[in-house]
Amino acid sequence: MSPSSSFLFLFLTISLASSHGFNHPFDPLAPLEITQVQTIVTSYISSSSSFTTNQKVHFHYVGLEEPDKPSINSWLSSPSLSSNLPPRQAFVIIRVGQQTHELKVDLSNNSVVSNMLHNGNGFPTITSEELEIANALPFEYPPFIASMDKRGLNVEEVVCESCTVGWFGEKEKSNRIVKVVCYYLNGTVNLFMRPIEGIIVVVDLDQMKVTGYNDRAIIPIPKAEGTDYRQVKETDGEGERRLFRSSLEEEIIMQQDEPNFSIEGHTVRWENWEFHLAFDMRAGPIISLASIFDPEQDTYRRVLYRGFLSEIFVPYMDLTLEWYFRVFFDAGEYGGGLCTVPLQPLTDCPPDAKFMDGYFTNQDGSFGKTPNVFCVFERDAGNVLWRHTETGIPNRVITEVRKEKTLVVRTVLTLSNYDYIVDWEFKKTGVITVTVGATGLLEVRGTEYTHADQIKEEAYGTLLAENSLGANHDHFLSFYLDLDIDGEANSFVKTKLETKRVTGNWSERKSYWTTVSEAAKTESDARVRVGSGDTQLVFVNPNKKTKIGNNIGYRLVPGSNVGQLLTDDDYPQIRGDFSKYNVWVTPFNKSERYAGGLYVDQSHGEDTLAEWSKRDREIENKDIVLWYTMGFHHVPCQEDFPLMPTLNGVFELRPYNFFEQNPVLNAKN
Amino acid sequence: MSPSSSFLFLFLTISLASSHGFNHPFDPLAPLEITQVQTIVTSYISSSSSFTTNQKVHFHYVGLEEPDKPSINSWLSSPSLSSNLPPRQAFVIIRVGQQTHELKVDLSNNSVVSNMLHNGNGFPTITSEELEIANALPFEYPPFIASMDKRGLNVEEVVCESCTVGWFGEKEKSNRIVKVVCYYLNGTVNLFMRPIEGIIVVVDLDQMKVTGYNDRAIIPIPKAEGTDYRQVKETDGEGERRLFRSSLEEEIIMQQDEPNFSIEGHTVRWENWEFHLAFDMRAGPIISLASIFDPEQDTYRRVLYRGFLSEIFVPYMDLTLEWYFRVFFDAGEYGGGLCTVPLQPLTDCPPDAKFMDGYFTNQDGSFGKTPNVFCVFERDAGNVLWRHTETGIPNRVITEVRKEKTLVVRTVLTLSNYDYIVDWEFKKTGVITVTVGATGLLEVRGTEYTHADQIKEEAYGTLLAENSLGANHDHFLSFYLDLDIDGEANSFVKTKLETKRVTGNWSERKSYWTTVSEAAKTESDARVRVGSGDTQLVFVNPNKKTKIGNNIGYRLVPGSNVGQLLTDDDYPQIRGDFSKYNVWVTPFNKSERYAGGLYVDQSHGEDTLAEWSKRDREIENKDIVLWYTMGFHHVPCQEDFPLMPTLNGVFELRPYNFFEQNPVLNAKN
Repeated sequence: MSPSSSFLFLFLTISLASSHGFNHPFDPLAPLEITQVQTIVTSYISSSSSFTTNQKVHFHYVGLEEPDKPSINSWLSSPSLSSNLPPRQAFVIIRVGQQTHELKVDLSNNSVVSNMLHNGNGFPTITSEELEIANALPFEYPPFIASMDKRGLNVEEVVCESCTVGWFGEKEKSNRIVKVVCYYLNGTVNLFMRPIEGIIVVVDLDQMKVTGYNDRAIIPIPKAEGTDYRQVKETDGEGERRLFRSSLEEEIIMQQDEPNFSIEGHTVRWENWEFHLAFDMRAGPIISLASIFDPEQDTYRRVLYRGFLSEIFVPYMDLTLEWYFRVFFDAGEYGGGLCTVPLQPLTDCPPDAKFMDGYFTNQDGSFGKTPNVFCVFERDAGNVLWRHTETGIPNRVITEVRKEKTLVVRTVLTLSNYDYIVDWEFKKTGVITVTVGATGLLEVRGTEYTHADQIKEEAYGTLLAENSLGANHDHFLSFYLDLDIDGEANSFVKTKLETKRVTGNWSERKSYWTTVSEAAKTESDARVRVGSGDTQLVFVNPNKKTKIGNNIGYRLVPGSNVGQLLTDDDYPQIRGDFSKYNVWVTPFNKSERYAGGLYVDQSHGEDTLAEWSKRDREIENKDIVLWYTMGFHHVPCQEDFPLMPTLNGVFELRPYNFFEQNPVLNAKN
Repeated sequence: MSPSSSFLFLFLTISLASSHGFNHPFDPLAPLEITQVQTIVTSYISSSSSFTTNQKVHFHYVGLEEPDKPSINSWLSSPSLSSNLPPRQAFVIIRVGQQTHELKVDLSNNSVVSNMLHNGNGFPTITSEELEIANALPFEYPPFIASMDKRGLNVEEVVCESCTVGWFGEKEKSNRIVKVVCYYLNGTVNLFMRPIEGIIVVVDLDQMKVTGYNDRAIIPIPKAEGTDYRQVKETDGEGERRLFRSSLEEEIIMQQDEPNFSIEGHTVRWENWEFHLAFDMRAGPIISLASIFDPEQDTYRRVLYRGFLSEIFVPYMDLTLEWYFRVFFDAGEYGGGLCTVPLQPLTDCPPDAKFMDGYFTNQDGSFGKTPNVFCVFERDAGNVLWRHTETGIPNRVITEVRKEKTLVVRTVLTLSNYDYIVDWEFKKTGVITVTVGATGLLEVRGTEYTHADQIKEEAYGTLLAENSLGANHDHFLSFYLDLDIDGEANSFVKTKLETKRVTGNWSERKSYWTTVSEAAKTESDARVRVGSGDTQLVFVNPNKKTKIGNNIGYRLVPGSNVGQLLTDDDYPQIRGDFSKYNVWVTPFNKSERYAGGLYVDQSHGEDTLAEWSKRDREIENKDIVLWYTMGFHHVPCQEDFPLMPTLNGVFELRPYNFFEQNPVLNAKN
């Protein structure tokens, strides 16, 4: 890019960044601001005596330094006053000279406010550029080429992917490494169904070179036939070509003119809901200040201060040499936001969806863009909001039915083989439903087996096709939910449904159940494994009651869920101990954001939700955070081959004596 | 009706009944056939020496006598051969001279094939006519009028409803009674929010007179204000009038021309699915012979032989005198099918839905019709069937996304206050999802309380508004699912995910989980309370395997669910013991259809799923039936007042090594 075109680009960016004419303190860093951070940090490094001249800086994270709550609340009291905006700061993680630094950068005065060296275990999110280079290194490594030759494979058809390596109790300070595993395309694009087993290439990311190599065994590569998933495989010399999609084209014609929601800057308004939607290169979508309008009080009432996907823990259950370390912490190791993909209009989202872009930081500090990173759409799934047919009044039949429409915010995170469709759905009833759809490709292990009858010992999974074992694994997605149920100070109340036996003859009945509620005093009271359905989990504002005296609250309604099965002392579990319970509650602490820790790559589990919770802090009538872990045990089946249909997990936040009465009684169709 | 108009009517009915030009042995009785049954039975009674001349006959049930499986299978082998059709028979339950008779009626030769007197406990479904008369009896009963006067109530604004009375250990042979409870409309149509507490009117249904009365206490009636739920309350002298619904009118315009599914007679075909849909006055919708097309085998493969809602058990947890007996078995006591309501086009179902009517039998044997009892529609909820974005191949990005559309069959059962929206949803992936939405009105108890702080003793529920206690209760819906996974003989396999500790140093890991599968041998092995998610529940065809050797199967995937909390010895629980486990499996037995028994009104729990299961029959590699109970614990909250938003329960049947691979890999958008 020449200097003049660069200037033009910056100018355009400025125009775009301010085009919505409105600033919100939770707005993510705009492209111009990312560039500004790059300039400030680069200049700081080159001028600071702490750093050697000309040391190369890699940016691993650049995001908004979240303003303190008091300053947000002060701004909210009169948001039109721009002087009320909290100072605009960035939180930055860089690697310089094989060390990790955390910087706080003030954008208003172009300064680095603080610089902290990270001395502990664990490394920041690996950059996309590092992965790209590491994935290419085997092709310049003669022993690897020899291994391919030995197998008779055409190197041009081999692709490699870097796996994070975890931690397995090593005491010495570890190098920042990945283990590269490779696949043989030759006739398919579905690389994950064609693993070249038996080979591990160890790459040191700081030195960016191969530091270890093992070719243990030659194992058959599953066949390519039947693994491709593309609609059109023909090429016209310029890559894939698409058929004209007639049915989708028709849908465009049916598209309605204007959506029934508005997006002003990053603020989304729909029916009785208002919330802020931001993109972050670590967390992906962040929902802030979600509030629902209460016509009775003639005001918006807060439900959720901040909510995002905090970590994704995917431990595989295959203990073979090339597999045991596959215990991914996807969001922290690869970057949940970095791995978002552009949503395809008409297929990923309905025709009338509106799209937003997301901006992240490249390794060199420049900004990158994921176009269409979010879509927002109104969903009419043909459901009924409420209904009743009254036939109990003689000679009259009354039927009243209201249709349900909801608002969906969708993001897709593609973490290598898996695609996670993350939907935040807002309902007029006050319900927030979070649905995660898992689809994409399984990780498959190559094997000699061609028939299940041949399997005589532990195979760690299901034979999905000839030579293809689908490895057993879990997904644990931890959601950070800083609830503010009608205000900041909340309590977590467990309402147990208890069987009461009737003693004496005063009733014809011998039993019934009733509710016994108890507020969790400290963090240890608030660890819950869901499942029995006999305990209701309610977050109340103990300082407010409805007119008739019930505690104002919201219920956490888990969907079908599972818990961790690994032993407590297993290293992956030490790092991902948040998966032991589905529910944790902590007092708000700005530094506690990621359930597996800030530096999760090769972490030792020292900075995790489970560790913080051990402090057993008080959580009653405090500003508290709910951490909800949604789990899937995945025993693969043949229907998952060569690509799996979407499998959904879900949870809800549902008003529970939050309103004086049904808030949608007056809903119109 | 004059004889000539009656003839015309019959003629029209014949034309209608045969209009689809196709007969299926599972087709429900057509109106003409119901009339034929009425004629045959009436003539039989009047001519049979077993009955006194001129004894009045009440028809409590008339439905198809389900043909035997071999005759169905024989017909299926060449369905075009009408001679292959099994004999057309009806199953009839009548009451004559205070006794219950079961008749089998052959329609081909106009005869009663069998007549069995029911000597056991329990009574058949109460007829709508009986309920109507019973509900009116208090108004002719002077002590009741006096009670109204004492309370200063205008009798014209009082309406009453009959509650079944259950069984509480009485040894003597019971009369067929209901307990009538009343409500005060005066200013609302929401009668259930305005109970007149303290009064019970006992009505003997056989004598059809008041046989007991108690006015125990005067308790405030909750106010009417704010309880009405109608969109337009103004009247123009001819009852309610509707506003012009502009947004719905628009949707009609957007309606597509032809749906993507066909309904031929009662057979529905959509994408890869084919099934038969029938209406029954007890069970409501019955899905039969649900089969999915397998392009690899070029044939339809059976999944479900018969599926329907077998019973709905709703025990309330309020032990006060007017409430303890409210432990309803709605489907058997009031008739699940009898209580279906006509679906409202545009609101209960989307604009492009197709509707079907249902026919039932009136008390006198004539037929009645519920128009629009089912709707069938294709749903596009904006979901993704599957997707993947592949970024692992250098210099290429591949994104493939397929939209999901599904087919929904919807019915609404309005059981007095509650409306159940029952959706059978078929997915191209082979998944069958059953969703039950509970909406409508709570049962509310009148109380002195106007503020929660006043409650010092057990209130059995939540104060929802002044003087209104929402009673704690459960819903247990038992689904009868006669699975035929790729054939009749199936086994139920529990696949447990077991933690394995690694011993020795051969792995860096200390643990993993693996699967241990065991087929249930007998009924006692097959009782499961779901929840932990650590056991997969699979129905396999042990006689068939996929090409690579996996058992062909379908998984039962429970949604979030609950189990029974009543004690085993409590009378309601003895009658509704199927609620103790979410999963039961029995060998197919034509007489075992209703989890709470055939004669559930005032039953003693002698003919229930739990009782049948005690025989502990063999179920491995047999024609087996899965009974799945979906449970809700409902602790009411203010949002449920004065009408509750829809609350969903769900379960799925999902192919599990049923197909050789993902059956929707080639799906087109």
